[in-house]
Amino acid sequence: MNREKTVSAAVCTIGDEILIGQITDTNSAAISRELGAAGVRVTSMVSIGDRRKEILKTLTEELKINDIVITTGGLGPTRDDITRNVLAELSGSSRFIRHEGQLQVVRKLLRARGLDTLEPNLRQADVPENSEVIVNRFGTAPIMVFRLDEARFAHPCTLIAMPGVPFETVNALPDVIADIKAHHRLQSITHRNVMTFGIAESALAQRIGAWEDSLPRDMKLAYLPDTLTGVKLRLSVYGGEAADNERRLQEQIQGLTALVGKHIYSYEEDTLEHALGVLLKATGKTLSAAESCTGGEISHLITTVPGSSEYYLGSVTSYAIPVKEKVLGVDPRLIEQNGVVSSEVAAAMAEGVRRLTGSDFSVATTGFAGPGGGDERYPEGTVWVGVSSEKGTETRKFEYHNDRKRNIQRFSASALFFLFTKVRTEVNC
Amino acid sequence: MNREKTVSAAVCTIGDEILIGQITDTNSAAISRELGAAGVRVTSMVSIGDRRKEILKTLTEELKINDIVITTGGLGPTRDDITRNVLAELSGSSRFIRHEGQLQVVRKLLRARGLDTLEPNLRQADVPENSEVIVNRFGTAPIMVFRLDEARFAHPCTLIAMPGVPFETVNALPDVIADIKAHHRLQSITHRNVMTFGIAESALAQRIGAWEDSLPRDMKLAYLPDTLTGVKLRLSVYGGEAADNERRLQEQIQGLTALVGKHIYSYEEDTLEHALGVLLKATGKTLSAAESCTGGEISHLITTVPGSSEYYLGSVTSYAIPVKEKVLGVDPRLIEQNGVVSSEVAAAMAEGVRRLTGSDFSVATTGFAGPGGGDERYPEGTVWVGVSSEKGTETRKFEYHNDRKRNIQRFSASALFFLFTKVRTEVNC
Repeated sequence: MNREKTVSAAVCTIGDEILIGQITDTNSAAISRELGAAGVRVTSMVSIGDRRKEILKTLTEELKINDIVITTGGLGPTRDDITRNVLAELSGSSRFIRHEGQLQVVRKLLRARGLDTLEPNLRQADVPENSEVIVNRFGTAPIMVFRLDEARFAHPCTLIAMPGVPFETVNALPDVIADIKAHHRLQSITHRNVMTFGIAESALAQRIGAWEDSLPRDMKLAYLPDTLTGVKLRLSVYGGEAADNERRLQEQIQGLTALVGKHIYSYEEDTLEHALGVLLKATGKTLSAAESCTGGEISHLITTVPGSSEYYLGSVTSYAIPVKEKVLGVDPRLIEQNGVVSSEVAAAMAEGVRRLTGSDFSVATTGFAGPGGGDERYPEGTVWVGVSSEKGTETRKFEYHNDRKRNIQRFSASALFFLFTKVRTEVNC
Repeated sequence: MNREKTVSAAVCTIGDEILIGQITDTNSAAISRELGAAGVRVTSMVSIGDRRKEILKTLTEELKINDIVITTGGLGPTRDDITRNVLAELSGSSRFIRHEGQLQVVRKLLRARGLDTLEPNLRQADVPENSEVIVNRFGTAPIMVFRLDEARFAHPCTLIAMPGVPFETVNALPDVIADIKAHHRLQSITHRNVMTFGIAESALAQRIGAWEDSLPRDMKLAYLPDTLTGVKLRLSVYGGEAADNERRLQEQIQGLTALVGKHIYSYEEDTLEHALGVLLKATGKTLSAAESCTGGEISHLITTVPGSSEYYLGSVTSYAIPVKEKVLGVDPRLIEQNGVVSSEVAAAMAEGVRRLTGSDFSVATTGFAGPGGGDERYPEGTVWVGVSSEKGTETRKFEYHNDRKRNIQRFSASALFFLFTKVRTEVNC
């Protein structure tokens, strides 16, 4: 079935700023995910400094044992970025050529930033003669591809140098993957993602264990958990024909849905706030939020979605009790009788903000994010969430044991999923 | 002056979940920062999979050329976590010993989570006989230290295996650094951090260039830029006596303050929201926020600070125009005459939320985060920020050219610094 040999790759980040821990390398993970999705196996990730000897040694070693090596970083205009020269040396290039397509991008970007075009900027478009260029439309440094020969590296291999700025790397990745697909015989691979929430990885594994064991041998399931988006299930099939694979994956996913459907919020790579937005947009319903312990994070997540102003009216962060009473209209006696962290107050906050903004749906949180806090009934890490619509108000309690920031994230994600479930149920009626 | 030889280290993360890009490695950067601060130079970072041969090869190579190798990950209770066995092999240990101190932590953590103690959990406390243990108080897997001999690695070297969970790694780091300091003759190094905001790295470099050039030869300055916290300047002195170094650093920082003092918000590792909180707490003043384009991010940042409920009353995210008018009391004619993104509306929002919550200070944002948006006067990426107190209301315009999420971050950070500046000025009067 898998006739093709697996193509392997190493990802190498170059730059002292990563080695000294000044910045966290997010490029390697992003590149690795896309390579994996294309059927390339990543065997190692390495970070090294801006030193010629180290770069030469590491790249030579990795090229000998991998089909592809992708580097990021070290292509800036300053003196300490020496990668370009090392790549020229490695590829046996004796001179640099100014690349016209990249030069146009350099000029355009500098103009947009209102900057003069200086010679060091223009030099950004210079590439070793033995390289092919993929124009970087999002930054000044071009992407250079070197097709290296068997003589020096014991097998034909490809070296691809990408810029280090994460925004540029991520945006240029599709072009790089397309180039890899065009030049390497990759094992075909088809993926389907299923986004779940509200069930831990271990519980999910137990619930769908029999289904997973009965998967055909050419299908693989991966559990990819994330605090804000839940457990993503990625079902992959290797080899075969794409159309047939799609149909077979679809069948399996129907089986999965029968088992854990109520935890599934999307059948593609997605976030809770985006899936919620899709639902609201499609039905013309509006939303508002009232936040206490989550402090604005729910509102922030909702508004990271482009176009959220179509359905999101706004929120009140009622951190202080008088704001809960005065702005949201929560009855002081309710707080006195039930405590500020309670089902009753969560419900009143949700109803209050819906009344205030006139939204169709609302969500509210009140809890103890820590450190410290908690009362006789509820420990630190407890949140009461309220969701409200004209059909009624519901509340639920969640409890987590993380530090403040992670508790806030988990509270927010749990509230969004609770809200999503209510919206889905009601708009489907 | 620097009599000691520089101690070098490699950081190695073990685990397929990093190689396939499922998770982003934040441990390496965290470890590297602490090693650097202790005077250890990190020469490389490597990520490899859960495979015996790869682990053996990589660790052996790195141990040959470094004084210290720190690994993270691969210590879980499941079968695919094989690091422990490989470490036993590498250190010539022929058996495992159950570590009593770690065992107690395992039992305690499982009890706290309401879980039964099963044999695979107990085995978490087993360590190769040739290792020393640093008890991991934040997780089940112990930290193992191997003092390796000259015979096999050409020089005496130390291998330290840490857990992979970032929360555990970060919390265990001080113990690991203390162990390294106790066993290696480190070059003494003294740091001072100065947090700046509102000035780009390049502009800062120009402004303080002469000062930087005149620094004594044993002092080094690093620029560490971050979207949310601005450019951190780290001034380090190598060798010498700590007390004397502190005094000399202090003198230089006075010189720096004379040049860029109005951009400095803290003289230690800090965030804008924390520095602002310190100021408000010290003076007993309160704060509220009104957010449009930042959508809750300012409120979120403020409330990530433990104890922020002492000074933070709450916020209104007025995403829809009617919420601006009805909840914040912004005059509809003001919006009609000036546009919703304008100095006038930012000012009215800041005043509105201060009136609504009764806070001493307030901050407000209205702008175009993109994608799209913008009007005839202001392009996408523009924000008007208002800050208000009983002494008056001020507004400022900022413009950035990033994607939606980064624009929201930059808007929020700029608003926080503008607010910080106003609070500092007024409470000092």
